[in-house]
Amino acid sequence: MTTVGLINPGTMGASVGAAAGQGGATVIWASTGRSLATRERAHESGLEDCHTLKNLVATSEVILSVCPPHSASDVAGQVAELGFSGIYLDANAIAPDVTRQIGLTITKRGARFVDGGIIGGPARNVEYGTQLYLSGEDASVIADIFEGSNLHASVISDQIGAASALKMTFAAYTKGTTALLSAILAVAEKEGVRANLEKQWGDEFTRQTHQRVIANTAKAWRFEGEMREIAATFSGAGLPGNFHEAAAQVFADLAKFKNQDETPGIEEVVAALLKST
Amino acid sequence: MTTVGLINPGTMGASVGAAAGQGGATVIWASTGRSLATRERAHESGLEDCHTLKNLVATSEVILSVCPPHSASDVAGQVAELGFSGIYLDANAIAPDVTRQIGLTITKRGARFVDGGIIGGPARNVEYGTQLYLSGEDASVIADIFEGSNLHASVISDQIGAASALKMTFAAYTKGTTALLSAILAVAEKEGVRANLEKQWGDEFTRQTHQRVIANTAKAWRFEGEMREIAATFSGAGLPGNFHEAAAQVFADLAKFKNQDETPGIEEVVAALLKST
Repeated sequence: MTTVGLINPGTMGASVGAAAGQGGATVIWASTGRSLATRERAHESGLEDCHTLKNLVATSEVILSVCPPHSASDVAGQVAELGFSGIYLDANAIAPDVTRQIGLTITKRGARFVDGGIIGGPARNVEYGTQLYLSGEDASVIADIFEGSNLHASVISDQIGAASALKMTFAAYTKGTTALLSAILAVAEKEGVRANLEKQWGDEFTRQTHQRVIANTAKAWRFEGEMREIAATFSGAGLPGNFHEAAAQVFADLAKFKNQDETPGIEEVVAALLKST
Repeated sequence: MTTVGLINPGTMGASVGAAAGQGGATVIWASTGRSLATRERAHESGLEDCHTLKNLVATSEVILSVCPPHSASDVAGQVAELGFSGIYLDANAIAPDVTRQIGLTITKRGARFVDGGIIGGPARNVEYGTQLYLSGEDASVIADIFEGSNLHASVISDQIGAASALKMTFAAYTKGTTALLSAILAVAEKEGVRANLEKQWGDEFTRQTHQRVIANTAKAWRFEGEMREIAATFSGAGLPGNFHEAAAQVFADLAKFKNQDETPGIEEVVAALLKST
């Protein structure tokens, strides 16, 4: 029975931890400094509390890093510092160059490194089809952990960076176009032609666009960092990064909708984008 | 019978001129310095050659400017310089601020100005549904010219800038996402995950994406300027212009496919984007 350390049980991370448990692993996490909501989420996901990161690193054969993009390098640095020598998965939405750098940090002291990219929402149900793409020489060890779980794990390459690149290029369109459509609505509003644009788009496209823009607002605060990682991915491959620098700015301007009880109307979203200018 | 001067009979312009003829106008154009292909196109579209811009300005009651975005201001400046005093339509893909500036140039000497934005391909058939959106106080005079023609003309506002803004915000998505998808394919190729990305996208989305990217190559050379106008439109409204600065760069990198006899394969398009880096 493999002992798996999960960093950290956010909404996505907790579902990944629960999936590892389904696959037969003992999953532990470190509660020090974490909120009550996170503790409750971890408990409901069947994770065992080992209290400190030091305990987690000492006990785990495998560590799964599932955290916001801007924390990925720090988390890896702390784990390396504590002398981890097992297998480390970084499953975060980060640029392949950042992943490769994290891989060097992790392997410097003899641990092994696997690259991961998650596509889809939290893996609460196998029907959701949440994908964990894996790459690197030890990728199959991670895939085995999720065998028979709600998370569909698959190995796509033996190269570190591949799984991150797949995540980045997929999100480049889905989240990139949500940001673009949000900005377009605001520009059209400012120029007094939003009704005309929506008529030209037609009812169905307009309805879908409003739905996407509105549904995105609660999550926008954490997409800014992901957009900057996508921009770095594009630049790293020699293509223009500015598409997603713009998307990052749009999401930053919508960050105020974080944790709002009610989903805003389209007028409120458009006003927020125009007010921030 | 209104005499309408058309500047210039490119592929789109010739179809607009022909539509004005259908509507009952006498349509003239100035052939000096134009290519044989343009002369033939103008002839086939039923336009009468008045040879010089000076003659065109002196004879026309209405002038229609349909030209590449970067020429729009120059064309208007030349017409104003020649003392035009009728109604001038700028139907080009330019930012509303540029349109408003052109309006000032045109009206300075007593002429009247109408803003226009064309959405759709050349208006060769009424079924194509090509739209000419119009705005400004004299917009209905232009709409009347196209009554009963292949071009659907409609007045959306009495404000100069509205028709341009509608054109810009509509093209922001259609052409912007074509550029984005082109760049995504190139990044995925560079990172060795294009097949994985296309599998995640699914057959239908992948097929449509390849089709859009390939079909765009022959026209890419003239989209760079339009993307820069869209970027200016966004910046002018206080939203990020970088989405379309990136799109402009992608189209510039594909400009070499101009006038190629054969449509390139997707591999060739991707290679062109990677080679230019």
